[in-house]
Amino acid sequence: LSNQLALGLDVGGTKLAGVLMTAEGEIVAKDARHTHGLEGSRAVLNRLFELADKLLASAIEPVCGIGVATPGIVDLQQGIVRFVSTELPGWSNLPIVELISKEFGMSVLIENDGRAAALAEHRLGVGRGCRNFITIVLGTGVGGGIVANNEILRGEHGGGGRLGHISVDPDGPPCTCGNRGCLELYASGPALANSITTAIQDGKPSTLSKEIYINPAQGLSGRQVVEAAKSGDALAQAVISDAGCKLGLAIVQMMRILDPIMIAVGGSISSAGDLLLDPAREILSRYSPPGYPIIPEIVRAKFGRDASVIGAALLGWEAANGTNLKRGNP
Amino acid sequence: LSNQLALGLDVGGTKLAGVLMTAEGEIVAKDARHTHGLEGSRAVLNRLFELADKLLASAIEPVCGIGVATPGIVDLQQGIVRFVSTELPGWSNLPIVELISKEFGMSVLIENDGRAAALAEHRLGVGRGCRNFITIVLGTGVGGGIVANNEILRGEHGGGGRLGHISVDPDGPPCTCGNRGCLELYASGPALANSITTAIQDGKPSTLSKEIYINPAQGLSGRQVVEAAKSGDALAQAVISDAGCKLGLAIVQMMRILDPIMIAVGGSISSAGDLLLDPAREILSRYSPPGYPIIPEIVRAKFGRDASVIGAALLGWEAANGTNLKRGNP
Repeated sequence: LSNQLALGLDVGGTKLAGVLMTAEGEIVAKDARHTHGLEGSRAVLNRLFELADKLLASAIEPVCGIGVATPGIVDLQQGIVRFVSTELPGWSNLPIVELISKEFGMSVLIENDGRAAALAEHRLGVGRGCRNFITIVLGTGVGGGIVANNEILRGEHGGGGRLGHISVDPDGPPCTCGNRGCLELYASGPALANSITTAIQDGKPSTLSKEIYINPAQGLSGRQVVEAAKSGDALAQAVISDAGCKLGLAIVQMMRILDPIMIAVGGSISSAGDLLLDPAREILSRYSPPGYPIIPEIVRAKFGRDASVIGAALLGWEAANGTNLKRGNP
Repeated sequence: LSNQLALGLDVGGTKLAGVLMTAEGEIVAKDARHTHGLEGSRAVLNRLFELADKLLASAIEPVCGIGVATPGIVDLQQGIVRFVSTELPGWSNLPIVELISKEFGMSVLIENDGRAAALAEHRLGVGRGCRNFITIVLGTGVGGGIVANNEILRGEHGGGGRLGHISVDPDGPPCTCGNRGCLELYASGPALANSITTAIQDGKPSTLSKEIYINPAQGLSGRQVVEAAKSGDALAQAVISDAGCKLGLAIVQMMRILDPIMIAVGGSISSAGDLLLDPAREILSRYSPPGYPIIPEIVRAKFGRDASVIGAALLGWEAANGTNLKRGNP
């Protein structure tokens, strides 16, 4: 196996990513495309095939298995996504594993992208050696994955770990998940961009205001908000800080239910670092009683935006070898 | 083993309970005492010893192990409670397993009472055969336990499954756990009694109003509210219904995180039945999107108030035999 590779594919709301990875977790090639999810599932799948083709053609060693990370409620047995919110129309119930497996003649495993990210961080990242560990991914959406007693928590139907849909305000705005005030509405990239845009339109000063007026149709991205905050923009910092507080409230819920030792925060928004995480840490201690002995550590994930695709490659190894990487066997 | 017994003890905020149980899960003797927790941990432990003595003396077959269910964050390895809220002063860090083991010369295991209840319901009650299952116990406090992938979820420090401390209103009143608006503040027995007392004092009519005026010092119990609701008292029904809505909001959080197939509701308040559970079910469907395929069933627990002590007896078997009952081995 040591001279073979696995292919990991990540279907994100914004981009498709792929990596070739060795058994030791070294990435030897990577590539990406825009998702353009609204063009429909067949178009997305064709772009994914094209991306995979290019990576496979570049491989100088044999590729033995494929793992796919995708948003939504993933049915591992059937190899389909059972439910996904609107950014990927037609993606639900598409026989993804079967189609990819036929196209490339290889074993394929599929997993929710947040759980794939948690797998990557638990196996190769900041969560190594943690028996009870959570990864939260703040990107176009907010996802996550839970490791409980060294195992990825999938739940009964593959719906475990939908951490972006923990409500931090039962009276908050409605979410596509049916709940109100979900974390995703406050801490995703689009949510940050929305918040600061509204504040600027209300007359608050920010270095980002010119971006909005120069190019109002395109809108801001979450990354721009993070960059502005890191460059000292006070309004962007306040927006990030508010997202960090909401993140903290969601983590308080998780800690009562799961008692993890560490929470890793990844995804593009996590590059805000302590501007985001310190307010979350502050909420955790404010919402715990004096002497509470089990407050988890909140850290930045190792892999940032790449966690899901690296987790997907780990699943590619699992698909090929039938070993149960997720449960800690070598 | 078939002619031996295990002793289960449950240290509740209101009462101490004990059972002798066969390997088949049959209860052959039971007894109870008031806890009087505010008299201090030594007094509570003495009453527990007395209760255990009486049950052991009544046993006509050998007793081989003892399980103890207790509120709080339980450290299995050290056999202590690491943290418990105020109803049991002095209980934290008391070497409970060592003291009980010395007193009776038997192997002893300790577990959080909510997790013990979940163990009982999963092994012998409504949760049999469910891989992903939650028990919520509504009593003097609100506790619970989670079964994820057939294992009791303990978390890193024994703090997993503190389901009464899921917040259903981040702006709600402060809780002893440090959080705000916890489920326990709305759905415990004392919370129900408080709600209806306030409403009656505000002039709302109820069959319970005379109880308050005849004996204002004693106050109402949650059970009285449940009984009144079942007898048709509209105000008591409204109070139970509101608790059911809050229960539903907490379950929505749990389902996003854990994706269980079934939620069993036990404890004294669960005798309200559908008066409590229908509003919770209604919240689950209202807070799910159309076509959401993974809404868990909400049912009454089999063992009601006895789940924790039955779970404790199962742990007594585990203490004696070293078999890992919790993980499904016979």
